[in-house]
Amino acid sequence: MILRLAIIGFGNIGQEFARLLLAKREWLLKSKGLDVEVLAIATRNRGSLLSRRGLDLQKVLGELKAKGHLRDYGPEVTALPPLSIIDECDADMMVELTTLDIEHGQPAKDHISNALQAGMDVVTANKGPIAHSYEELRSMARSRNVRLRFEGTVMDGTPVFNLVERTLPGCEVICLRGILNSTSNFVLTEMHRGRTMDEAVKEAQRRGFAEADPSLDIDGWDAAAKITALANVLMGAGMTPQSVVRQGIRDIGAEELLTEARNGKKIRLVATAKREGDGVELTVRRESVTSDDPFWAVDGTSSALTIRTDLMGDITVLETDPTVTQTAYAVFSDMLLTVESIRSGTL
Amino acid sequence: MILRLAIIGFGNIGQEFARLLLAKREWLLKSKGLDVEVLAIATRNRGSLLSRRGLDLQKVLGELKAKGHLRDYGPEVTALPPLSIIDECDADMMVELTTLDIEHGQPAKDHISNALQAGMDVVTANKGPIAHSYEELRSMARSRNVRLRFEGTVMDGTPVFNLVERTLPGCEVICLRGILNSTSNFVLTEMHRGRTMDEAVKEAQRRGFAEADPSLDIDGWDAAAKITALANVLMGAGMTPQSVVRQGIRDIGAEELLTEARNGKKIRLVATAKREGDGVELTVRRESVTSDDPFWAVDGTSSALTIRTDLMGDITVLETDPTVTQTAYAVFSDMLLTVESIRSGTL
Repeated sequence: MILRLAIIGFGNIGQEFARLLLAKREWLLKSKGLDVEVLAIATRNRGSLLSRRGLDLQKVLGELKAKGHLRDYGPEVTALPPLSIIDECDADMMVELTTLDIEHGQPAKDHISNALQAGMDVVTANKGPIAHSYEELRSMARSRNVRLRFEGTVMDGTPVFNLVERTLPGCEVICLRGILNSTSNFVLTEMHRGRTMDEAVKEAQRRGFAEADPSLDIDGWDAAAKITALANVLMGAGMTPQSVVRQGIRDIGAEELLTEARNGKKIRLVATAKREGDGVELTVRRESVTSDDPFWAVDGTSSALTIRTDLMGDITVLETDPTVTQTAYAVFSDMLLTVESIRSGTL
Repeated sequence: MILRLAIIGFGNIGQEFARLLLAKREWLLKSKGLDVEVLAIATRNRGSLLSRRGLDLQKVLGELKAKGHLRDYGPEVTALPPLSIIDECDADMMVELTTLDIEHGQPAKDHISNALQAGMDVVTANKGPIAHSYEELRSMARSRNVRLRFEGTVMDGTPVFNLVERTLPGCEVICLRGILNSTSNFVLTEMHRGRTMDEAVKEAQRRGFAEADPSLDIDGWDAAAKITALANVLMGAGMTPQSVVRQGIRDIGAEELLTEARNGKKIRLVATAKREGDGVELTVRRESVTSDDPFWAVDGTSSALTIRTDLMGDITVLETDPTVTQTAYAVFSDMLLTVESIRSGTL
């Protein structure tokens, strides 16, 4: 089976995903009988490529490394915008990896709906569309008999959506509680150890996981988008990040954390989703945790989610010290699960 | 679709599974289009039942509660031994819930192989056969085009086998580390808090999760069987519980734990599986853990497993304060996953 991909957005995650495809090429062929071809790669301002014969990923990665753009790649260079690339490329699957727009989840949402309408399966690591328009996109996918997967939107490749969907059949999710944002958790961990917020943010930027403007992390927006995505998918919440009762960590003082530390406590930025009447209440706020809480040991860029269900009680999953490899793996695993569905004729 | 079951072994887990089938009857019909009938129930010394028309689970549970046996149930009472019941019952799926035999995994292994040979799918919560004969049983299932599932053998219904199989495609398991035995963890937790081992064991027996003879738990055999089952399935170890380098907690003194506690440490009975050359090394032994270890917060009857993989790094799953409901759910979820496979024509 040949699987032809269009990759929209080609930053750190996209490039790591491409490296993973190269590294696993033999394994995919031998173990899965799967030959993955990339027909299109779209970037915002480093050039885009479109080819009916398939792109040479090694060459693509080499160009980006050497020149920082794709405009010298060869005749496959295209000036088409992403939406037109999706329409033109004739791929089987679209992989959406553009960056988060917290307000409306755009242009990712349009990329995804265009691909679904064109009859492509979609895999995304972009939480915006799932936090803003999950129901709409899911209905669209169903009506076109294609699949939409998004494991990488929360906790990288650690199974959370797939965990509930694929291993907890018949369980109803009652509530969710998680440490979902790496940067704020890293900052709180460093402050617990005596650093100032400014020092901790600079260190996170130096290590490459915090943005130049870390407000989305520090003000709780990233965690809000993630808990919304989780609640939309696992609890049918139908909400947006704007409806989350949200607290960040910006106004927290070094002294406050040290006082907590002296009392045997750590401050965590915790996102929760709880059923309230007919709806779901979403919050992101600071909590003091003690060492008998599983979240105590979730330091640095690690993350955690407790899923409370009717039949299985509380299950907690922890991800420890992830790198971009883990997010790329999310896309890789969703690609494989989609292929499995295609082959068994299920949605 | 009608699914006809034979349940071999009908203790706490079997009865809870029957209650779950009754509670979810409507949901199974409406959401899954599934009508589950139980054709046979075999117990060791409380009587066995066999019916082509299906048993009344409400009545079965009532008889057991009122009389402690099934011998007055009615004309479906049978004197056939379990192996003959499996041969005679004409069920679609055999559910194996007899108790653990640490030496050979019998008679559960024979029950399972008979059912597989007869073309039945099998779900079991008995770790013996998986720890002793996984490869053999798996080959047998494949050659007969039927399925063998066993999520309940380790950490009750918390997904561990299904987690790797169904949500981590393409990942190779490099090592495993877990707190897998409830009773010994409960005893260590109580001793950390100042109780003696004797008091803690009695309390575990009073609460109903420790056997009258708790040696399998206290001497590390139960944990050994579980890490063997995990390693056989997830790492292709092909080993038995007898090959585990095993330490228990029997010879641990109350003073030792209190000294650790004063030094900010807890003792845990930790099971590990690691690749060593061409093989896998299995151990069960005591470890001192500090509060930055995710296992620190795993107190009482809770359990935990860290799965280290090549592509996804470390994923840890925690189960908190499970009851028999969680083990019954393991069987229920494996039943549903098996039905899903039957419907999609996969193994």
